[in-house]
Amino acid sequence: MNGQLDGMQDFLREVAAAAALETLPRFRQQHEIANKLEAGFDPVTEADREAEKAIRRLIQARFPDHVIVGEEFGVSGGPSDHEWVIDPVDGTRAFISGLPLWGTLVGLKYKGRAVAGLMAQPFTGETFIADGAGSYYDGPGGPRRLATRGTTRLADATMCTTTPALFAGGRRAAYDRIEGAVRLARYGTDCYAYCMLAAGHIDLVVEIGLQPYDIVALVPIIEQAGGVITTVDGGRPEAAGYIVAAANAELHAAAMAVLAGG
Amino acid sequence: MNGQLDGMQDFLREVAAAAALETLPRFRQQHEIANKLEAGFDPVTEADREAEKAIRRLIQARFPDHVIVGEEFGVSGGPSDHEWVIDPVDGTRAFISGLPLWGTLVGLKYKGRAVAGLMAQPFTGETFIADGAGSYYDGPGGPRRLATRGTTRLADATMCTTTPALFAGGRRAAYDRIEGAVRLARYGTDCYAYCMLAAGHIDLVVEIGLQPYDIVALVPIIEQAGGVITTVDGGRPEAAGYIVAAANAELHAAAMAVLAGG
Repeated sequence: MNGQLDGMQDFLREVAAAAALETLPRFRQQHEIANKLEAGFDPVTEADREAEKAIRRLIQARFPDHVIVGEEFGVSGGPSDHEWVIDPVDGTRAFISGLPLWGTLVGLKYKGRAVAGLMAQPFTGETFIADGAGSYYDGPGGPRRLATRGTTRLADATMCTTTPALFAGGRRAAYDRIEGAVRLARYGTDCYAYCMLAAGHIDLVVEIGLQPYDIVALVPIIEQAGGVITTVDGGRPEAAGYIVAAANAELHAAAMAVLAGG
Repeated sequence: MNGQLDGMQDFLREVAAAAALETLPRFRQQHEIANKLEAGFDPVTEADREAEKAIRRLIQARFPDHVIVGEEFGVSGGPSDHEWVIDPVDGTRAFISGLPLWGTLVGLKYKGRAVAGLMAQPFTGETFIADGAGSYYDGPGGPRRLATRGTTRLADATMCTTTPALFAGGRRAAYDRIEGAVRLARYGTDCYAYCMLAAGHIDLVVEIGLQPYDIVALVPIIEQAGGVITTVDGGRPEAAGYIVAAANAELHAAAMAVLAGG
Protein backbone atom coordinates (compact mmCIF):
# COMPACT_ATOMS: atom_id res chain seq x y z
CA MET A 1 0.00 0.00 0.00
CA ASN A 2 2.73 2.47 0.85
CA GLY A 3 4.13 2.11 -2.63
CA GLN A 4 0.82 3.05 -4.15
CA LEU A 5 0.50 6.13 -1.99
CA ASP A 6 3.75 7.35 -3.53
CA GLY A 7 2.73 9.91 -6.08
CA MET A 8 -0.73 10.23 -4.52
CA GLN A 9 -0.54 14.04 -4.16
CA ASP A 10 0.28 14.48 -7.83
CA PHE A 11 -2.43 12.03 -8.86
CA LEU A 12 -5.08 13.78 -6.75
CA ARG A 13 -4.06 17.18 -8.19
CA GLU A 14 -4.52 15.69 -11.65
CA VAL A 15 -7.98 14.47 -10.58
CA ALA A 16 -8.84 17.94 -9.24
CA ALA A 17 -7.82 19.59 -12.50
CA ALA A 18 -9.85 17.15 -14.61
CA ALA A 19 -12.94 17.61 -12.44
CA ALA A 20 -12.62 21.41 -12.54
CA LEU A 21 -12.85 21.36 -16.33
CA GLU A 22 -16.34 19.87 -15.94
CA THR A 23 -17.63 21.72 -12.86
CA LEU A 24 -16.31 25.27 -13.11
CA PRO A 25 -17.74 26.19 -16.53
CA ARG A 26 -21.19 25.12 -15.23
CA PHE A 27 -20.97 27.07 -11.93
CA ARG A 28 -22.99 30.33 -11.87
CA GLN A 29 -24.36 29.77 -15.34
CA GLN A 30 -27.95 29.92 -14.12
CA HIS A 31 -28.22 33.62 -14.87
CA GLU A 32 -27.79 32.93 -18.56
CA ILE A 33 -30.10 29.97 -18.81
CA ALA A 34 -33.34 30.82 -17.04
CA ASN A 35 -35.36 29.72 -20.07
CA LYS A 36 -33.28 26.59 -20.56
CA LEU A 37 -34.03 25.60 -16.95
CA GLU A 38 -37.67 25.39 -17.93
CA ALA A 39 -36.59 22.95 -20.64
CA GLY A 40 -34.91 20.67 -18.08
CA PHE A 41 -31.36 21.98 -18.44
CA ASP A 42 -29.67 21.41 -15.12
CA PRO A 43 -26.06 22.61 -14.80
CA VAL A 44 -25.34 20.99 -11.43
CA THR A 45 -26.52 17.56 -12.58
CA GLU A 46 -24.41 17.90 -15.73
CA ALA A 47 -21.42 18.97 -13.62
CA ASP A 48 -21.94 16.00 -11.31
CA ARG A 49 -22.15 13.46 -14.12
CA GLU A 50 -19.40 14.78 -16.34
CA ALA A 51 -16.96 15.32 -13.46
CA GLU A 52 -17.55 11.78 -12.16
CA LYS A 53 -16.91 10.37 -15.65
CA ALA A 54 -13.63 12.31 -15.88
CA ILE A 55 -12.52 11.16 -12.41
CA ARG A 56 -13.41 7.52 -13.15
CA ARG A 57 -11.38 7.62 -16.38
CA LEU A 58 -8.26 8.78 -14.51
CA ILE A 59 -8.64 6.19 -11.74
CA GLN A 60 -9.33 3.34 -14.17
CA ALA A 61 -6.28 4.25 -16.24
CA ARG A 62 -3.96 4.41 -13.23
CA PHE A 63 -5.47 1.73 -10.97
CA PRO A 64 -7.38 -0.66 -13.25
CA ASP A 65 -7.85 -3.26 -10.49
CA HIS A 66 -9.47 -0.93 -7.93
CA VAL A 67 -13.15 -0.68 -7.06
CA ILE A 68 -14.79 2.69 -7.79
CA VAL A 69 -17.97 3.89 -6.03
CA GLY A 70 -19.48 7.16 -7.22
CA GLU A 71 -22.56 9.14 -6.26
CA GLU A 72 -23.75 9.25 -9.87
CA PHE A 73 -22.74 5.94 -11.46
CA GLY A 74 -22.58 3.43 -8.59
CA VAL A 75 -20.02 0.62 -8.21
CA SER A 76 -17.58 -0.61 -10.84
CA GLY A 77 -14.53 -2.91 -10.85
CA GLY A 78 -13.14 -5.19 -8.20
CA PRO A 79 -13.14 -7.12 -6.01
CA SER A 80 -10.19 -5.25 -4.50
CA ASP A 81 -8.90 -4.09 -1.14
CA HIS A 82 -8.72 -0.62 -2.71
CA GLU A 83 -11.93 1.33 -3.14
CA TRP A 84 -12.27 4.85 -4.48
CA VAL A 85 -15.29 6.88 -3.30
CA ILE A 86 -16.36 9.89 -5.39
CA ASP A 87 -18.77 12.78 -4.87
CA PRO A 88 -18.14 14.96 -7.91
CA VAL A 89 -20.10 17.94 -6.52
CA ASP A 90 -20.63 17.84 -2.76
CA GLY A 91 -22.82 20.78 -1.71
CA THR A 92 -25.14 20.99 -4.68
CA ARG A 93 -27.34 23.52 -2.86
CA ALA A 94 -24.33 25.83 -2.47
CA PHE A 95 -23.48 25.24 -6.13
CA ILE A 96 -26.91 26.25 -7.39
CA SER A 97 -26.89 29.31 -5.09
CA GLY A 98 -23.59 30.62 -6.49
CA LEU A 99 -21.75 30.06 -3.19
CA PRO A 100 -18.15 28.76 -3.43
CA LEU A 101 -18.56 26.25 -0.57
CA TRP A 102 -19.14 23.13 -2.70
CA GLY A 103 -16.31 20.79 -3.57
CA THR A 104 -15.21 17.73 -5.50
CA LEU A 105 -14.56 14.83 -3.12
CA VAL A 106 -12.42 11.81 -3.98
CA GLY A 107 -11.34 9.37 -1.27
CA LEU A 108 -9.38 6.11 -1.27
CA LYS A 109 -10.13 3.29 1.18
CA TYR A 110 -7.77 0.36 1.81
CA LYS A 111 -9.38 -2.64 3.51
CA GLY A 112 -12.29 -0.43 4.54
CA ARG A 113 -10.27 2.40 6.02
CA ALA A 114 -9.94 5.83 4.37
CA VAL A 115 -6.24 6.45 3.70
CA ALA A 116 -6.10 9.30 1.16
CA GLY A 117 -8.46 12.05 0.07
CA LEU A 118 -9.07 15.17 -1.98
CA MET A 119 -11.39 18.13 -1.57
CA ALA A 120 -11.09 20.57 -4.48
CA GLN A 121 -12.88 23.94 -4.77
CA PRO A 122 -12.01 25.22 -8.23
CA PHE A 123 -13.68 28.67 -8.02
CA THR A 124 -11.42 29.69 -5.12
CA GLY A 125 -8.58 27.56 -6.54
CA GLU A 126 -8.20 25.54 -3.33
CA THR A 127 -7.23 21.90 -2.84
CA PHE A 128 -7.07 19.97 0.44
CA ILE A 129 -5.22 16.68 0.03
CA ALA A 130 -4.30 13.82 2.40
CA ASP A 131 -1.72 11.50 0.89
CA GLY A 132 -1.19 8.99 3.70
CA ALA A 133 1.61 10.95 5.33
CA GLY A 134 -0.13 14.28 6.00
CA SER A 135 -2.77 16.80 4.95
CA TYR A 136 -1.87 19.66 2.66
CA TYR A 137 -3.48 22.89 1.44
CA ASP A 138 -2.80 24.65 -1.81
CA GLY A 139 -4.55 27.81 -3.03
CA PRO A 140 -4.59 31.55 -2.28
CA GLY A 141 -1.91 32.33 0.28
CA GLY A 142 0.30 29.50 -0.97
CA PRO A 143 0.81 25.85 -0.05
CA ARG A 144 1.12 24.68 3.55
CA ARG A 145 0.70 21.61 5.69
CA LEU A 146 -2.63 21.45 7.51
CA ALA A 147 -2.93 21.09 11.28
CA THR A 148 -6.01 21.28 13.48
CA ARG A 149 -5.94 23.72 16.38
CA GLY A 150 -5.72 23.16 20.11
CA THR A 151 -9.17 24.23 21.29
CA THR A 152 -10.17 21.79 24.04
CA ARG A 153 -13.24 23.46 25.61
CA LEU A 154 -16.61 23.56 23.85
CA ALA A 155 -17.09 27.09 25.20
CA ASP A 156 -14.18 28.22 23.01
CA ALA A 157 -15.15 26.20 19.94
CA THR A 158 -16.56 27.19 16.55
CA MET A 159 -18.88 24.52 15.14
CA CYS A 160 -20.34 23.95 11.66
CA THR A 161 -23.36 21.94 10.53
CA THR A 162 -25.61 21.90 7.48
CA THR A 163 -28.73 22.98 9.36
CA PRO A 164 -30.21 22.10 12.78
CA ALA A 165 -33.44 21.18 10.99
CA LEU A 166 -31.89 17.85 9.91
CA PHE A 167 -31.76 16.63 13.53
CA ALA A 168 -35.16 15.10 14.29
CA GLY A 169 -36.76 14.08 17.57
CA GLY A 170 -34.42 13.40 20.51
CA ARG A 171 -31.45 14.06 18.25
CA ARG A 172 -32.60 17.68 17.89
CA ALA A 173 -32.46 18.15 21.66
CA ALA A 174 -28.92 16.75 21.72
CA TYR A 175 -27.92 18.97 18.80
CA ASP A 176 -29.41 22.03 20.51
CA ARG A 177 -27.39 21.22 23.66
CA ILE A 178 -24.14 21.22 21.75
CA GLU A 179 -25.00 24.37 19.81
CA GLY A 180 -25.75 25.98 23.16
CA ALA A 181 -22.38 24.84 24.52
CA VAL A 182 -20.13 26.21 21.74
CA ARG A 183 -19.00 29.78 21.19
CA LEU A 184 -20.18 30.06 17.59
CA ALA A 185 -22.21 27.91 15.17
CA ARG A 186 -22.20 28.29 11.39
CA TYR A 187 -24.64 26.61 8.99
CA GLY A 188 -24.67 25.44 5.39
CA THR A 189 -20.97 24.85 4.96
CA ASP A 190 -20.96 21.29 3.51
CA CYS A 191 -17.54 19.74 2.76
CA TYR A 192 -15.86 23.12 3.20
CA ALA A 193 -16.42 22.90 6.96
CA TYR A 194 -14.34 19.72 7.32
CA CYS A 195 -11.46 21.38 5.47
CA MET A 196 -11.66 24.46 7.71
CA LEU A 197 -11.47 22.02 10.65
CA ALA A 198 -8.35 20.37 9.17
CA ALA A 199 -6.86 23.83 8.53
CA GLY A 200 -7.36 25.02 12.13
CA HIS A 201 -9.98 27.70 11.44
CA ILE A 202 -12.89 25.95 13.15
CA ASP A 203 -13.04 23.24 15.83
CA LEU A 204 -16.07 20.99 15.40
CA VAL A 205 -18.41 19.60 12.74
CA VAL A 206 -21.59 17.73 13.75
CA GLU A 207 -23.69 16.38 10.87
CA ILE A 208 -26.37 13.78 10.36
CA GLY A 209 -27.70 11.80 7.40
CA LEU A 210 -24.38 11.61 5.53
CA GLN A 211 -23.66 9.09 2.79
CA PRO A 212 -20.23 7.42 2.52
CA TYR A 213 -19.41 9.53 -0.55
CA ASP A 214 -20.04 12.67 1.57
CA ILE A 215 -17.36 11.78 4.09
CA VAL A 216 -14.75 9.17 2.94
CA ALA A 217 -12.53 11.76 1.19
CA LEU A 218 -12.66 14.06 4.22
CA VAL A 219 -11.74 11.45 6.85
CA PRO A 220 -8.01 11.26 5.98
CA ILE A 221 -7.82 15.04 5.47
CA ILE A 222 -8.98 15.48 9.09
CA GLU A 223 -7.12 12.54 10.63
CA GLN A 224 -3.81 13.35 8.93
CA ALA A 225 -4.13 16.98 10.15
CA GLY A 226 -4.46 15.77 13.75
CA GLY A 227 -8.24 15.75 14.09
CA VAL A 228 -10.59 13.04 15.36
CA ILE A 229 -13.65 11.94 13.38
CA THR A 230 -16.10 9.16 14.29
CA THR A 231 -19.74 8.25 14.08
CA VAL A 232 -21.83 9.47 17.01
CA ASP A 233 -21.43 5.96 18.49
CA GLY A 234 -17.65 6.27 18.40
CA GLY A 235 -17.20 3.95 15.41
CA ARG A 236 -15.10 4.43 12.30
CA PRO A 237 -16.49 7.33 10.22
CA GLU A 238 -16.36 5.53 6.86
CA ALA A 239 -19.80 4.19 7.81
CA ALA A 240 -21.16 7.77 7.48
CA GLY A 241 -24.59 8.59 8.97
CA TYR A 242 -24.25 10.77 12.07
CA ILE A 243 -20.70 12.16 12.25
CA VAL A 244 -18.74 14.06 14.94
CA ALA A 245 -15.44 15.61 13.81
CA ALA A 246 -13.23 17.58 16.20
CA ALA A 247 -9.88 19.35 16.20
CA ASN A 248 -8.43 16.95 18.81
CA ALA A 249 -9.32 14.03 21.07
CA GLU A 250 -10.14 16.15 24.14
CA LEU A 251 -12.64 18.32 22.28
CA HIS A 252 -14.10 15.25 20.56
CA ALA A 253 -14.70 13.61 23.94
CA ALA A 254 -16.36 16.78 25.25
CA ALA A 255 -18.68 16.89 22.23
CA MET A 256 -19.54 13.19 22.49
CA ALA A 257 -20.42 13.62 26.17
CA VAL A 258 -22.83 16.47 25.44
CA LEU A 259 -24.44 14.62 22.52
CA ALA A 260 -24.93 11.57 24.75
CA GLY A 261 -26.63 13.77 27.32
CA GLY A 262 -23.71 13.51 29.74
CA MET B 1 -24.14 64.50 -8.64
CA ASN B 2 -23.74 62.80 -12.01
CA GLY B 3 -20.38 64.46 -12.42
CA GLN B 4 -19.17 62.96 -9.18
CA LEU B 5 -20.31 59.48 -10.15
CA ASP B 6 -18.04 59.70 -13.18
CA GLY B 7 -14.99 57.68 -12.28
CA MET B 8 -16.86 55.95 -9.45
CA GLN B 9 -16.03 52.41 -10.66
CA ASP B 10 -12.32 53.18 -10.72
CA PHE B 11 -12.47 54.86 -7.33
CA LEU B 12 -14.31 51.91 -5.74
CA ARG B 13 -11.78 49.48 -7.22
CA GLU B 14 -9.03 51.57 -5.64
CA VAL B 15 -10.90 51.37 -2.32
CA ALA B 16 -11.24 47.59 -2.67
CA ALA B 17 -7.52 47.19 -3.31
CA ALA B 18 -6.54 49.37 -0.33
CA ALA B 19 -8.90 47.46 1.99
CA ALA B 20 -7.62 44.08 0.76
CA LEU B 21 -4.10 45.02 1.83
CA GLU B 22 -5.40 45.24 5.42
CA THR B 23 -7.93 42.39 5.48
CA LEU B 24 -6.45 39.57 3.41
CA PRO B 25 -3.14 39.14 5.29
CA ARG B 26 -5.18 38.76 8.51
CA PHE B 27 -7.66 36.20 7.10
CA ARG B 28 -7.02 32.58 8.17
CA GLN B 29 -4.09 33.55 10.37
CA GLN B 30 -5.69 32.02 13.47
CA HIS B 31 -3.90 28.72 12.99
CA GLU B 32 -0.56 30.41 13.49
CA ILE B 33 -1.49 32.52 16.48
CA ALA B 34 -3.34 30.33 18.95
CA ASN B 35 -1.09 31.49 21.78
CA LYS B 36 -1.31 35.12 20.69
CA LEU B 37 -5.10 34.87 20.87
CA GLU B 38 -4.72 34.22 24.59
CA ALA B 39 -2.80 37.49 24.77
CA GLY B 40 -5.69 39.41 23.21
CA PHE B 41 -4.48 39.38 19.60
CA ASP B 42 -7.55 39.59 17.41
CA PRO B 43 -7.00 39.49 13.63
CA VAL B 44 -10.57 40.37 12.61
CA THR B 45 -10.69 43.46 14.83
CA GLU B 46 -7.33 44.57 13.45
CA ALA B 47 -8.56 43.94 9.90
CA ASP B 48 -11.72 45.96 10.64
CA ARG B 49 -9.88 48.94 12.11
CA GLU B 50 -6.99 49.10 9.64
CA ALA B 51 -9.20 48.62 6.58
CA GLU B 52 -11.57 51.37 7.72
CA LYS B 53 -8.62 53.74 8.23
CA ALA B 54 -7.36 52.98 4.72
CA ILE B 55 -10.81 53.52 3.19
CA ARG B 56 -11.33 56.78 5.09
CA ARG B 57 -7.97 58.11 3.87
CA LEU B 58 -8.95 57.53 0.23
CA ILE B 59 -12.39 59.11 0.62
CA GLN B 60 -11.06 62.12 2.51
CA ALA B 61 -8.39 62.73 -0.14
CA ARG B 62 -10.85 62.50 -3.02
CA PHE B 63 -14.01 63.96 -1.42
CA PRO B 64 -12.85 66.16 1.47
CA ASP B 65 -16.31 67.73 1.98
CA HIS B 66 -18.24 64.46 2.33
CA VAL B 67 -19.51 62.91 5.56
CA ILE B 68 -18.05 59.48 6.43
CA VAL B 69 -19.79 56.99 8.72
CA GLY B 70 -17.90 53.83 9.60
CA GLU B 71 -18.64 50.84 11.79
CA GLU B 72 -15.39 51.27 13.70
CA PHE B 73 -14.73 55.02 13.91
CA GLY B 74 -18.17 56.65 13.75
CA VAL B 75 -19.01 59.91 11.96
CA SER B 76 -16.55 62.45 10.56
CA GLY B 77 -16.80 65.50 8.27
CA GLY B 78 -19.81 67.33 6.93
CA PRO B 79 -22.45 68.56 6.92
CA SER B 80 -22.89 67.37 3.34
CA ASP B 81 -25.52 65.84 1.06
CA HIS B 82 -22.97 63.10 0.38
CA GLU B 83 -22.45 60.44 3.03
CA TRP B 84 -20.17 57.41 2.77
CA VAL B 85 -21.09 54.37 4.84
CA ILE B 86 -18.36 51.80 5.58
CA ASP B 87 -18.33 48.27 7.00
CA PRO B 88 -14.71 47.22 6.54
CA VAL B 89 -15.40 43.53 7.35
CA ASP B 90 -19.05 42.53 7.04
CA GLY B 91 -19.46 38.91 8.16
CA THR B 92 -16.91 38.77 10.94
CA ARG B 93 -18.17 35.31 11.99
CA ALA B 94 -17.43 33.98 8.49
CA PHE B 95 -14.03 35.71 8.62
CA ILE B 96 -13.04 34.06 11.90
CA SER B 97 -14.27 30.68 10.60
CA GLY B 98 -12.08 30.81 7.48
CA LEU B 99 -15.12 31.05 5.16
CA PRO B 100 -14.77 33.39 2.15
CA LEU B 101 -18.29 34.87 2.51
CA TRP B 102 -17.30 38.09 4.31
CA GLY B 103 -16.79 41.33 2.42
CA THR B 104 -15.72 44.94 2.57
CA LEU B 105 -18.76 47.22 2.14
CA VAL B 106 -18.56 50.86 1.06
CA GLY B 107 -21.70 52.77 0.06
CA LEU B 108 -22.40 56.35 -0.98
CA LYS B 109 -25.67 58.12 -0.11
CA TYR B 110 -26.81 61.36 -1.75
CA LYS B 111 -29.55 63.21 0.15
CA GLY B 112 -30.25 60.03 2.10
CA ARG B 113 -30.52 57.66 -0.84
CA ALA B 114 -27.88 55.03 -1.63
CA VAL B 115 -26.54 55.75 -5.12
CA ALA B 116 -23.27 53.79 -5.40
CA GLY B 117 -21.74 50.83 -3.62
CA LEU B 118 -18.95 48.28 -3.37
CA MET B 119 -18.77 44.74 -2.01
CA ALA B 120 -15.26 43.31 -2.25
CA GLN B 121 -14.23 39.74 -1.34
CA PRO B 122 -10.45 39.69 -1.72
CA PHE B 123 -9.85 35.96 -1.05
CA THR B 124 -11.96 34.98 -4.08
CA GLY B 125 -10.86 38.14 -5.90
CA GLU B 126 -14.42 39.32 -6.47
CA THR B 127 -15.86 42.85 -6.60
CA PHE B 128 -19.51 43.83 -6.98
CA ILE B 129 -19.86 47.55 -7.82
CA ALA B 130 -22.82 49.85 -8.49
CA ASP B 131 -21.74 53.14 -10.03
CA GLY B 132 -25.06 54.91 -10.52
CA ALA B 133 -25.61 53.54 -14.00
CA GLY B 134 -25.46 49.80 -13.34
CA SER B 135 -24.11 46.94 -11.24
CA TYR B 136 -20.95 45.14 -12.30
CA TYR B 137 -19.05 41.99 -11.32
CA ASP B 138 -15.37 41.38 -11.66
CA GLY B 139 -13.51 38.27 -10.55
CA PRO B 140 -13.08 34.61 -11.60
CA GLY B 141 -14.90 34.07 -14.88
CA GLY B 142 -14.26 37.64 -16.00
CA PRO B 143 -16.17 40.94 -15.78
CA ARG B 144 -19.86 41.20 -16.56
CA ARG B 145 -22.87 43.37 -15.88
CA LEU B 146 -25.12 42.07 -13.09
CA ALA B 147 -28.81 41.36 -13.55
CA THR B 148 -31.26 39.71 -11.19
CA ARG B 149 -33.26 36.78 -12.49
CA GLY B 150 -36.92 36.43 -13.38
CA THR B 151 -38.18 34.11 -10.64
CA THR B 152 -41.65 35.37 -9.70
CA ARG B 153 -43.06 32.51 -7.56
CA LEU B 154 -41.85 31.85 -4.02
CA ALA B 155 -42.12 28.11 -4.73
CA ASP B 156 -39.30 28.49 -7.29
CA ALA B 157 -37.15 30.83 -5.19
CA THR B 158 -33.85 30.33 -3.38
CA MET B 159 -33.64 32.46 -0.21
CA CYS B 160 -30.75 33.40 2.07
CA THR B 161 -30.71 34.64 5.66
CA THR B 162 -28.16 34.77 8.48
CA THR B 163 -30.05 32.37 10.73
CA PRO B 164 -33.73 31.87 11.58
CA ALA B 165 -32.77 32.20 15.27
CA LEU B 166 -32.54 36.01 14.88
CA PHE B 167 -36.30 36.25 14.25
CA ALA B 168 -37.95 36.45 17.68
CA GLY B 169 -41.58 36.07 18.73
CA GLY B 170 -44.22 36.67 16.06
CA ARG B 171 -41.50 37.52 13.59
CA ARG B 172 -40.22 33.95 13.82
CA ALA B 173 -43.60 32.62 12.76
CA ALA B 174 -43.60 34.95 9.76
CA TYR B 175 -40.04 33.94 8.90
CA ASP B 176 -40.93 30.25 9.16
CA ARG B 177 -43.87 30.82 6.78
CA ILE B 178 -41.61 32.26 4.12
CA GLU B 179 -38.95 29.60 4.59
CA GLY B 180 -41.73 27.05 4.16
CA ALA B 181 -42.88 28.77 0.96
CA VAL B 182 -39.54 28.88 -0.89
CA ARG B 183 -37.79 26.08 -2.72
CA LEU B 184 -34.47 26.35 -0.89
CA ALA B 185 -33.12 28.34 2.09
CA ARG B 186 -29.42 28.93 2.81
CA TYR B 187 -28.03 30.34 6.06
CA GLY B 188 -24.99 32.30 7.17
CA THR B 189 -24.25 34.05 3.91
CA ASP B 190 -23.96 37.68 5.11
CA CYS B 191 -23.24 40.34 2.44
CA TYR B 192 -22.40 37.64 -0.09
CA ALA B 193 -26.10 36.72 -0.34
CA TYR B 194 -27.10 40.18 -1.59
CA CYS B 195 -24.45 39.97 -4.30
CA MET B 196 -25.65 36.52 -5.37
CA LEU B 197 -29.14 38.10 -5.60
CA ALA B 198 -27.81 40.92 -7.80
CA ALA B 199 -25.96 38.34 -9.92
CA GLY B 200 -29.05 36.20 -10.55
CA HIS B 201 -27.96 33.12 -8.59
CA ILE B 202 -30.52 33.42 -5.77
CA ASP B 203 -33.87 35.22 -5.56
CA LEU B 204 -34.56 36.48 -2.06
CA VAL B 205 -32.80 37.72 1.09
CA VAL B 206 -34.77 38.23 4.32
CA GLU B 207 -32.75 39.56 7.28
CA ILE B 208 -33.42 41.28 10.58
CA GLY B 209 -31.41 43.43 12.96
CA LEU B 210 -29.26 45.07 10.28
CA GLN B 211 -27.33 48.29 10.84
CA PRO B 212 -27.11 50.93 8.07
CA TYR B 213 -23.45 49.99 7.46
CA ASP B 214 -24.60 46.39 6.80
CA ILE B 215 -26.87 47.39 3.93
CA VAL B 216 -26.20 50.86 2.39
CA ALA B 217 -23.46 49.59 0.05
CA LEU B 218 -25.65 46.68 -1.08
CA VAL B 219 -28.80 48.69 -1.88
CA PRO B 220 -27.49 50.21 -5.15
CA ILE B 221 -25.86 46.91 -6.17
CA ILE B 222 -29.29 45.26 -5.97
CA GLU B 223 -31.37 48.15 -7.34
CA GLN B 224 -29.06 48.80 -10.29
CA ALA B 225 -29.16 45.07 -11.15
CA GLY B 226 -32.97 45.18 -11.34
CA GLY B 227 -33.81 43.99 -7.83
CA VAL B 228 -36.16 45.45 -5.22
CA ILE B 229 -35.06 46.05 -1.63
CA THR B 230 -37.10 47.64 1.16
CA THR B 231 -37.68 47.43 4.86
CA VAL B 232 -40.38 44.95 5.90
CA ASP B 233 -42.76 47.93 6.08
CA GLY B 234 -42.06 48.80 2.44
CA GLY B 235 -39.87 51.83 3.27
CA ARG B 236 -36.50 52.78 1.83
CA PRO B 237 -33.87 50.22 2.87
CA GLU B 238 -31.22 52.75 3.95
CA ALA B 239 -33.00 52.71 7.33
CA ALA B 240 -31.80 49.10 7.78
CA GLY B 241 -33.41 46.93 10.50
CA TYR B 242 -35.67 44.26 8.94
CA ILE B 243 -34.91 44.00 5.20
CA VAL B 244 -36.60 42.17 2.31
CA ALA B 245 -34.61 42.03 -0.95
CA ALA B 246 -35.94 40.28 -4.06
CA ALA B 247 -34.96 39.67 -7.66
CA ASN B 248 -37.94 41.64 -8.99
CA ALA B 249 -41.08 43.50 -7.94
CA GLU B 250 -43.44 40.55 -8.35
CA LEU B 251 -41.39 38.24 -6.12
CA HIS B 252 -40.89 41.07 -3.61
CA ALA B 253 -44.65 41.57 -3.39
CA ALA B 254 -45.17 37.83 -2.87
CA ALA B 255 -42.61 37.78 -0.05
CA MET B 256 -44.10 40.85 1.62
CA ALA B 257 -47.57 39.28 1.54
CA VAL B 258 -46.34 36.11 3.28
CA LEU B 259 -44.37 38.06 5.89
CA ALA B 260 -47.47 40.18 6.61
CA GLY B 261 -49.46 36.99 7.16
CA GLY B 262 -51.44 37.46 3.95
